[in-house]
Amino acid sequence: MTIMRLEKFLNEIKGFLKDSQIVLDRERLSHFSYDATERQYMPQVALFPESTEDVSRLMKCASLHGVPVTPQGGRTGLSGGALPVRGGVALSFARLNRILEIDEANMFAVVQPGVISNDLQIELKGRGLFFPPDPSSTVDSTLGGNVAENAGYTRAVKYGVTRDYVRGLEAVLPSGEVITLGGKTVKNVAGYDLISLLVGSEGTLAIITKITLRLLMRPRVRRTVMAYLNDLPEAADLIVAIFRSGIVPCAIELMDSIAINTVADHLGAALSRDAAALVLIETDGHGEEEVEAEAMEMTNLCRRSPGVTEARLAADDTEAERFWTYRREVLPSLKALGKDHLEADVVVPRYNLPFLVRFTGGLKRSDAIKIATYGHAGDGNLHVTILHRRRNFAELEEAYRLLELIYRETIAMGGSLTGEHGVGLTVMDYLPMQIEGEALPLMRRIKAAFDPMGILNPGKIFKD
Amino acid sequence: MTIMRLEKFLNEIKGFLKDSQIVLDRERLSHFSYDATERQYMPQVALFPESTEDVSRLMKCASLHGVPVTPQGGRTGLSGGALPVRGGVALSFARLNRILEIDEANMFAVVQPGVISNDLQIELKGRGLFFPPDPSSTVDSTLGGNVAENAGYTRAVKYGVTRDYVRGLEAVLPSGEVITLGGKTVKNVAGYDLISLLVGSEGTLAIITKITLRLLMRPRVRRTVMAYLNDLPEAADLIVAIFRSGIVPCAIELMDSIAINTVADHLGAALSRDAAALVLIETDGHGEEEVEAEAMEMTNLCRRSPGVTEARLAADDTEAERFWTYRREVLPSLKALGKDHLEADVVVPRYNLPFLVRFTGGLKRSDAIKIATYGHAGDGNLHVTILHRRRNFAELEEAYRLLELIYRETIAMGGSLTGEHGVGLTVMDYLPMQIEGEALPLMRRIKAAFDPMGILNPGKIFKD
Repeated sequence: MTIMRLEKFLNEIKGFLKDSQIVLDRERLSHFSYDATERQYMPQVALFPESTEDVSRLMKCASLHGVPVTPQGGRTGLSGGALPVRGGVALSFARLNRILEIDEANMFAVVQPGVISNDLQIELKGRGLFFPPDPSSTVDSTLGGNVAENAGYTRAVKYGVTRDYVRGLEAVLPSGEVITLGGKTVKNVAGYDLISLLVGSEGTLAIITKITLRLLMRPRVRRTVMAYLNDLPEAADLIVAIFRSGIVPCAIELMDSIAINTVADHLGAALSRDAAALVLIETDGHGEEEVEAEAMEMTNLCRRSPGVTEARLAADDTEAERFWTYRREVLPSLKALGKDHLEADVVVPRYNLPFLVRFTGGLKRSDAIKIATYGHAGDGNLHVTILHRRRNFAELEEAYRLLELIYRETIAMGGSLTGEHGVGLTVMDYLPMQIEGEALPLMRRIKAAFDPMGILNPGKIFKD
Repeated sequence: MTIMRLEKFLNEIKGFLKDSQIVLDRERLSHFSYDATERQYMPQVALFPESTEDVSRLMKCASLHGVPVTPQGGRTGLSGGALPVRGGVALSFARLNRILEIDEANMFAVVQPGVISNDLQIELKGRGLFFPPDPSSTVDSTLGGNVAENAGYTRAVKYGVTRDYVRGLEAVLPSGEVITLGGKTVKNVAGYDLISLLVGSEGTLAIITKITLRLLMRPRVRRTVMAYLNDLPEAADLIVAIFRSGIVPCAIELMDSIAINTVADHLGAALSRDAAALVLIETDGHGEEEVEAEAMEMTNLCRRSPGVTEARLAADDTEAERFWTYRREVLPSLKALGKDHLEADVVVPRYNLPFLVRFTGGLKRSDAIKIATYGHAGDGNLHVTILHRRRNFAELEEAYRLLELIYRETIAMGGSLTGEHGVGLTVMDYLPMQIEGEALPLMRRIKAAFDPMGILNPGKIFKD
């Protein structure tokens, strides 16, 4: 983008935005240059709209002058979706952060995109209501970001992903036009489902300015079982046995031996270091007795399942919380090793997940490189972390070579290269491995139907 | 379409389709001219592809010669989606009707679009598996049709609509290109969600040739409660009370007094003729005791709820079946009155539904016209049936005037003009009342991204 175009754009937006809504200072701007991928791209200006009208007007100007605009939520994404790779505008939602309505009778919330996910959770908790999507970034990520990325979370096994809860959207097209879709109805087949299309479109199609979310009643009781296995493929059978029992678990998580040992080291916790896998299973519900009965059944299923060396039902919430700490500490423990991370967010048919874990564990590699695998086993969604040193080119090259092997195996298993983190920058180069033929050009035509000039979050999803 | 273009098209397809795959005989063709809307449009030819390759090749020819193609499932639709309004090809899936795979370990089914919905249900039942979407047309409708229309059904309250179960699609674009999307994974964020876009696109974007469906375990137990109310708005409070209890009912259905009395007349059943509404509530689950406890809680909630004059928990499956017969017999009973039907499939925020029922019941009208309202109260989805005589122009005009008033009230309540039947032909003229501004042109641009020549199911959703 030329300086002249940017100058013209800035002159125009100063006509309707206050000085406090415009950041040009490079030091402050650097704040908007990164996310959780550790990559960095500087925007030329950061803008803070305070209304849909602000967004609409600034998009009209951006269209007129061909200025790139990259919407940003909490910048906690793991695929680079919020990075302004072509410079231009970083669009912050920090001032569009109000919970507009909690409609208890219809069980809907209406929010602005900048609301921190956890702030909604707190607001709902006091009313006995529940918005299931609760990604691990919840205290930093925004609902707009969660919607744009169709965020997953541990309890998606039972409750589904973010898309399943979005029933209405207000959005601004790159042209500045405002569209309103859906509302507080659980069903709606009037016209194409643009809501489902915008959810997970990673900020490349339109700018979301208002979100209507379906709510549930908060489950009153939950129970957690922890099991160790001495054999990975047997974990596949255990997972199938749980589902086939008729119980709908709310979470099934898996950690491989590298993940177990790293957490044990980091926390000084007495985990079973010889185990091939640790599996966490949780059930929740309305009635205490029914959840208790399901938890007992799950524990017994674990105990009877081949390969299980130990299965323990958490005695109380404190012990359950301790089990979950092991899972939550995987990433921090891995980070504490001081290595660089190359992460794959692959998803395969559920039964295949333990086989993929065995595949990643068995990959030939130099001693310098470690691969830890863990993830949402109930969804078949695995986070594979290749630990390497970025500045050692041999290691970096090997890490990328291993990543490609994992991607190939995922595709061979009928899987997808990303289950919840998105394509963004990090998966972009590999996407044609999965989406073949006319499907990707078709997605580009849909992009053009929304954004003919390509000014909205350019340089993402599609390789130039 | 000119005869010459059709001739050229037919000559070409005879190169790869057998005679038995082509129907030109007008008498046999008339079979493909109607659906459940009682409208009729003759196709010029009906084709019976036997493979994806057949579909791909015939679409290439249709594109070349600009021949309209209208995909047809069981032709049970209520919005005219399967009617060949521009003539051309009626595309039948009668020979693409195989269940390709039931993957019990991953809990997925892979089917061709022509599989009769109920045939899959039967196949799954024997394995303890469950595909929740079960529209009332299930013995005649096809899974391809259910997917194209994003069909609803009574248990959508708990289990969601058809879209929530489609995880993979193979589809043929109007150009003849075959695309493959998703697969046997429950999560997937690689690229735009074209699957959700195709589901509910009413056969206007692409021709679905293979469907991968997520399955659940069949609930073992279900219990049904029937309640009468002497006041409609109180039904809103009852529905809210049920949801707020934490119970997730699988169905909440409502019948107004006209529906009650028509069914009572038709079946000679002892229904409470003075009631303002009849409400059916069902819960299901894995464990007998838990479902029993929920059923008791629901019954007590009904008994404590203002306006409820009677609440009865079905003693056994036979009695539950009898309760459900009342609901299922609404449409046949109305049909037996020998009047013409003008039906609205409106959906409003759940709490508003009883108010909409009161509104439709209170509409000023001549004595000749009756309005019966009933529907999926738990979803806020109402089927309003305006009984009139089509050949009496005054009545016909009045029926359409009433329909428009109902649509206006629906929009005013924040609702949608169609909850599960689709836009097709019947809602097309009214769609701009609901979808305003740039959203409809945007949908047309998406249509053009798939079907630049407009040969696929032309004359639907968008008014020319």
